[in-house]
Amino acid sequence: MTVRPEALASPSAPPGQPAPALLARFRAVRARTVDLVAPLSDADATVQSMPDASPAKWHLAHTTWFFESFVLRDHVPGHDLYDERWPFLFNSYYEAEGARLARPSRGMLTRPSLDEVIAWRAYVDAAVERAWPHLPTRARDLLELGCHHEEQHQELLLTDILHLFAQNPLLPAIWPRKARTLPGRAEPLRWIAGRSGRHAVGHDGAGFAFDCEGPRHEVLLHPHALADRPVTNGEWQDFIADGGYRTASLWLSDGWAWVQANAIEAPAYWRRGEDGLFRQCFGLDGPRQIDPAAPVCHVSYYEADAFAQWAGARLPTEEEWEAAAARLDPAQGHFLDEAGPVHPRPCLAPSSRPGEGPRQMFGDVWEWTRSAYLPYPGFTPASGAVGEYNGKFMSGQFVLKGGSCATPRGHARASYRNFFYPHQRWQFTGVRLARDA
Amino acid sequence: MTVRPEALASPSAPPGQPAPALLARFRAVRARTVDLVAPLSDADATVQSMPDASPAKWHLAHTTWFFESFVLRDHVPGHDLYDERWPFLFNSYYEAEGARLARPSRGMLTRPSLDEVIAWRAYVDAAVERAWPHLPTRARDLLELGCHHEEQHQELLLTDILHLFAQNPLLPAIWPRKARTLPGRAEPLRWIAGRSGRHAVGHDGAGFAFDCEGPRHEVLLHPHALADRPVTNGEWQDFIADGGYRTASLWLSDGWAWVQANAIEAPAYWRRGEDGLFRQCFGLDGPRQIDPAAPVCHVSYYEADAFAQWAGARLPTEEEWEAAAARLDPAQGHFLDEAGPVHPRPCLAPSSRPGEGPRQMFGDVWEWTRSAYLPYPGFTPASGAVGEYNGKFMSGQFVLKGGSCATPRGHARASYRNFFYPHQRWQFTGVRLARDA
Amino acid sequence: MTVRPEALASPSAPPGQPAPALLARFRAVRARTVDLVAPLSDADATVQSMPDASPAKWHLAHTTWFFESFVLRDHVPGHDLYDERWPFLFNSYYEAEGARLARPSRGMLTRPSLDEVIAWRAYVDAAVERAWPHLPTRARDLLELGCHHEEQHQELLLTDILHLFAQNPLLPAIWPRKARTLPGRAEPLRWIAGRSGRHAVGHDGAGFAFDCEGPRHEVLLHPHALADRPVTNGEWQDFIADGGYRTASLWLSDGWAWVQANAIEAPAYWRRGEDGLFRQCFGLDGPRQIDPAAPVCHVSYYEADAFAQWAGARLPTEEEWEAAAARLDPAQGHFLDEAGPVHPRPCLAPSSRPGEGPRQMFGDVWEWTRSAYLPYPGFTPASGAVGEYNGKFMSGQFVLKGGSCATPRGHARASYRNFFYPHQRWQFTGVRLARDA
Amino acid sequence: MTVRPEALASPSAPPGQPAPALLARFRAVRARTVDLVAPLSDADATVQSMPDASPAKWHLAHTTWFFESFVLRDHVPGHDLYDERWPFLFNSYYEAEGARLARPSRGMLTRPSLDEVIAWRAYVDAAVERAWPHLPTRARDLLELGCHHEEQHQELLLTDILHLFAQNPLLPAIWPRKARTLPGRAEPLRWIAGRSGRHAVGHDGAGFAFDCEGPRHEVLLHPHALADRPVTNGEWQDFIADGGYRTASLWLSDGWAWVQANAIEAPAYWRRGEDGLFRQCFGLDGPRQIDPAAPVCHVSYYEADAFAQWAGARLPTEEEWEAAAARLDPAQGHFLDEAGPVHPRPCLAPSSRPGEGPRQMFGDVWEWTRSAYLPYPGFTPASGAVGEYNGKFMSGQFVLKGGSCATPRGHARASYRNFFYPHQRWQFTGVRLARDA
Repeated sequence: MTVRPEALASPSAPPGQPAPALLARFRAVRARTVDLVAPLSDADATVQSMPDASPAKWHLAHTTWFFESFVLRDHVPGHDLYDERWPFLFNSYYEAEGARLARPSRGMLTRPSLDEVIAWRAYVDAAVERAWPHLPTRARDLLELGCHHEEQHQELLLTDILHLFAQNPLLPAIWPRKARTLPGRAEPLRWIAGRSGRHAVGHDGAGFAFDCEGPRHEVLLHPHALADRPVTNGEWQDFIADGGYRTASLWLSDGWAWVQANAIEAPAYWRRGEDGLFRQCFGLDGPRQIDPAAPVCHVSYYEADAFAQWAGARLPTEEEWEAAAARLDPAQGHFLDEAGPVHPRPCLAPSSRPGEGPRQMFGDVWEWTRSAYLPYPGFTPASGAVGEYNGKFMSGQFVLKGGSCATPRGHARASYRNFFYPHQRWQFTGVRLARDA
Repeated sequence: MTVRPEALASPSAPPGQPAPALLARFRAVRARTVDLVAPLSDADATVQSMPDASPAKWHLAHTTWFFESFVLRDHVPGHDLYDERWPFLFNSYYEAEGARLARPSRGMLTRPSLDEVIAWRAYVDAAVERAWPHLPTRARDLLELGCHHEEQHQELLLTDILHLFAQNPLLPAIWPRKARTLPGRAEPLRWIAGRSGRHAVGHDGAGFAFDCEGPRHEVLLHPHALADRPVTNGEWQDFIADGGYRTASLWLSDGWAWVQANAIEAPAYWRRGEDGLFRQCFGLDGPRQIDPAAPVCHVSYYEADAFAQWAGARLPTEEEWEAAAARLDPAQGHFLDEAGPVHPRPCLAPSSRPGEGPRQMFGDVWEWTRSAYLPYPGFTPASGAVGEYNGKFMSGQFVLKGGSCATPRGHARASYRNFFYPHQRWQFTGVRLARDA
Repeated sequence: MTVRPEALASPSAPPGQPAPALLARFRAVRARTVDLVAPLSDADATVQSMPDASPAKWHLAHTTWFFESFVLRDHVPGHDLYDERWPFLFNSYYEAEGARLARPSRGMLTRPSLDEVIAWRAYVDAAVERAWPHLPTRARDLLELGCHHEEQHQELLLTDILHLFAQNPLLPAIWPRKARTLPGRAEPLRWIAGRSGRHAVGHDGAGFAFDCEGPRHEVLLHPHALADRPVTNGEWQDFIADGGYRTASLWLSDGWAWVQANAIEAPAYWRRGEDGLFRQCFGLDGPRQIDPAAPVCHVSYYEADAFAQWAGARLPTEEEWEAAAARLDPAQGHFLDEAGPVHPRPCLAPSSRPGEGPRQMFGDVWEWTRSAYLPYPGFTPASGAVGEYNGKFMSGQFVLKGGSCATPRGHARASYRNFFYPHQRWQFTGVRLARDA
Repeated sequence: MTVRPEALASPSAPPGQPAPALLARFRAVRARTVDLVAPLSDADATVQSMPDASPAKWHLAHTTWFFESFVLRDHVPGHDLYDERWPFLFNSYYEAEGARLARPSRGMLTRPSLDEVIAWRAYVDAAVERAWPHLPTRARDLLELGCHHEEQHQELLLTDILHLFAQNPLLPAIWPRKARTLPGRAEPLRWIAGRSGRHAVGHDGAGFAFDCEGPRHEVLLHPHALADRPVTNGEWQDFIADGGYRTASLWLSDGWAWVQANAIEAPAYWRRGEDGLFRQCFGLDGPRQIDPAAPVCHVSYYEADAFAQWAGARLPTEEEWEAAAARLDPAQGHFLDEAGPVHPRPCLAPSSRPGEGPRQMFGDVWEWTRSAYLPYPGFTPASGAVGEYNGKFMSGQFVLKGGSCATPRGHARASYRNFFYPHQRWQFTGVRLARDA
């Protein structure tokens, strides 16, 4: 999501949560964002490492702008804006909200400082607490939307600072290393038959969802199988060793051009060891040995597709993925629970019992699908200011499913549709193979 | 198709045509290409007006290279290549065929001359005629494929020279104007219910098709309606007058960036009159008045989508389009029948009788669908040299259906999938609206 | 000086200053740099606003690297580098010193922090103090060179943070406004006859100079006159009002292309008032009214040359300028004396007595000359590590003379040759007119 | 001269040639341009191989536009323009002459054809012949200027088609090879003392000169020596073998960036042999063996300067060069005498007698000087339409002297100042070394 998925809650969705639960969620989400930046200096939180990324301070401010604009300003009479000049700085792309700072200039904002932005957060949070008892339903819906919106930015915040620190030759660790797991080798990949025939996909109306997840609708699934686990780093090292990055016939035409123009030869953040082989990767806890058993991460769609070609397989469609995930519990996934370094778990689980579904669908790594991010049948733009641009990102991007180790727990669900351009790979993006049955 | 759709015949397809018919087709196709360049000078045929376009001479040569390489060289013992240095010049993108001239350098080839390339064509044609009685089935399949391949290049040749001549301030006419039809205004657009429920799409196995048209498979169609005719120039003038090109909320995010970066304010080849309004367009017969009743042409996907937003509608999916077209006869469409200027016909047909299907689906203008160009379920790459890259263009592009006034008659069919990037518009690309029912 | 003028002292120059004076200078220079960053946050000191600029922290570190490498490492046995990884980060362009961070990536270094860099400074300063009594002559020469080098970076530091803060829509003031002078209008420009005939230019061997200032040599000056003062903002407003930025015939060909490509219509940091006229400019003390009597500042060579064309004059050569300045005392100029906002003084001095020379030659604004930055006759590269690239910037740039209000007092002299590319204007660059007599 | 040196005759210059001589010159110049394109096809004459180059047809037309506009239109009452639309196409950069085709689009003009442009030439030539007896002095001055202007374009025409054909993998020969000289090795370079002290340079007023060659003025020359001959291909091969293109310390900063960005490793048009060494070069007669004794050609200023560094020498100033050339007869030089392939002559002349001056100063290769192209003291723009932009190219370029084997005989003189950007090298540009005495 180069442009951020601030797409919006379906207006027909019921408020979803009882008020106290929503307020509690609001408090928890707001607190976690601040936790995430605790190890960052003012400078760390200010620099923009590429146009696709935003500074951490900008994430802190933009999510606050969202609440102040769409909840307080629009629904709380008498609310005084903290600073009338700041909306220009921290609006992301809402044309209806007026002019705004050009995206590549987000890193020029050394003022306001990190502390000032955190003070703004406190100001807005207090105003929401005061206004809470009187908030109309529409405002509560927007508050809920704002929580989900901020969760998205929490993941972006993590991936953006990872990208920033990877540019620093000192390779700083944002957080200390957690106990290291012993690198291993995953069990061989196994195929699990997927569902076929008529099947309903899309959000079913219970609980919160972004509008692009609906309407729920039926699709026809064709016979296929899914891999029981993600592709691992070890398998990716085999792909590299077999010349995968030098074999034009494996690649999409655009992908091959991308490989050549950018001299791509491994996933992002992989580093060569002294023997010239890719043995190390960089993470939020600094450089570490690549774990062959862990899911490969930080690969682009082009790489995912080329790997699948090499493996004699293909990527799943979003509907195939969702159908398989519908029976699984997202809460079992490996998600972001607290501030700290995040890594996908290794695929060391005991082989699945007969009949068991695919593992590690939720959490660990976002899984590229071969489905373009396009509107579902019957999708219509929501009304109102926040709904202005529901589908405006629906060209050129591919859908990813399942969430990652950097996705806040509780944010993902089977119907969730994440999307990025096929060359992007600074998110925690991985691969699950599929094949026709 | 920036990169050309030299995708290949389904290997399971039967030879298709009885031998004499195929030979006749070969002769006709080869002759028409030469007819198309009759009004061109050596210089006209040599210049490349943009990286997406190729010189006319290159099209003449590349199609000949295809036959000489895949039919004569591979299947006719003792065939002497006309010039051993030319494959390097005229291979398009077949990695397995070795190194080749970089695409943006195609316009540097002032030698060989147009006459020399036409002499090569004659040499290859004569060799095919001599070899014909002895050609094995595989070679005949490739010959058939080569004919369809060359038909694709005939359309590209026309659109590429149109683009070239549009760069010349003298606005030269390649061909004389045919009798001018009286500009009119189309009947108001009417909605026709589309098919819904299970429906099979994709090539059904009878006759030739490119491999990306299959396998035939069932899809679920959701209730919808299609416009009974394409969007017209008059309607597009209304869109412009209403500020369509200046209203961010109508546009996809990528589209709005494209509009701003390129100062887009009208379809390609439209020109302002002295009153500042867009009244004139440029074609292969030079500048002419815009006919409000004719289908709008030379618009990008971004424009098509924005127009649909403005009109409160959407673009059809490729499956919706194909389901509606399945009952129609492509032969009724307005296609390229002979060398000369091409224009979409005005939408002046009497209003349709109850029960009649949509008009002008085949021919006139390629119609953008909202479907990304992606593999059909069960699609597998063909084997062999020509099949190396069947799906390599399946990212980032959208499907267009129906063919245009520049498509050779007999080339298009309901299952045909053309594809271009969403910003491209130098083809004869237009718009048909759809809406949810 | 996109690439910084770390050109070096002439090896034949005598040590110049008695030891205690040099040590005192070292202490003063080192202290002032730290003073300059006192109002900056860690973030302010870290961000790079364009490839031509460097972060303040980088200037602090790079100047320290210079002393630690060329004085301590090379001449003080047993010196322990503060951090062995930092030379890679803070080498600017010395190829002989090994690999280094790419220039456009200087803004990625959120670590080390501003505090850590300042601690490094203290470490190096203390080591120099300890080593001082034992430093060999070569090391003292390098210490002196390092002081001049650091003075250059002080000016760059100021202009780089001015550029950074100008990108911030909040227009922050780095320092508080000093007492405002009353805007006035300068006396009309008067012409002062320049020297002609044989004249010696270049450094004369007394005191420190960069090697490109020598050897001293004779030139032939042709009859000419110089303006008695710089061009003022008021005159520049007249130039704008007369369509100067829209009149192609006034501009160099490259300059006109630059104007059009960048939509240039006023000096850098000028801002339009509500009436659409340029009435405000931005400085280190925030936005302020343009003073018509003050020298115009932040103009490129292209603008300077176009203005001279418009005024029926020309720019002086560097030799004409130096000949006129030889009789003047640099100490009378308006230079940087302490940390704080800097502005050129208005040209309000009473009209000069007969025989008096031109005013405001030293300080206020660097004055563009029409002389390309090229080697003087007999110039030869210095030997040794620091001398590796003495002349490597001698193509494509123009010489500026006299120093500015941001140049540390004592740094400039008549023979001083500053240089920048003709499109650059983020330095305090202004214009003095000349004409043939 | 990316932008062409259509700078103009000094208005104070006397008409120069008696009328019949001028008319004869006009006829000869006009005829030679047509001779030069005799081997070119319409396509060869139409394609533009890079923005710096122009199509041969454009040169034919632009020079004709010059005569039709400035002589016939402005001075011959009743002259009918051949085509009123063509001035827009063939004006180069005269802002006063109105809007014009963007330079990079010159290669889009497949119409008018080569034959049509040649017909235009005949029309204009005939009109000049008819008007000749009645032409006022100003018109005759412009006619003379037009002849020199066209001679400049003859050289550009040759270098532009050489560049075009070098892009063609077939490496076509425009003209047949003349008798091959036996490759040899030049005599070792010898140094010849240059003139020092006061010396007058610049055009002295006799005969035609471009205005930038004056006014004649005195300069002070410092003791120096010049090489007796140009640097040879053999010496350049030694430079390459010694790692010259990989040694950063030899290069100007801008030059090193250029080498790296463009992967430069030899002069333009040099090609590697099967042993990996540069043994072949491409010329207007196709590929040929590099002659070690011939002057190196097609090198940029950056390369020339780096070579001089490597050789322990430097480039001469334009004044040093001109002082040495003042005693030589340009007519002895190797210039373009007739249409055909051009190559610098090898440096095989017997060693010079004591007192003899440097050889091959005129013709063979343009010699880079270390002088920036800037106005001479007292230079003032000429009046009138053609004089609008006399000095507009005076930034960023370096002066070259002496003419080349592609310069029409009679065009060059000691005061002639050619100029190009330091990275350009598609002209016949070579190197003569100098050193301080």
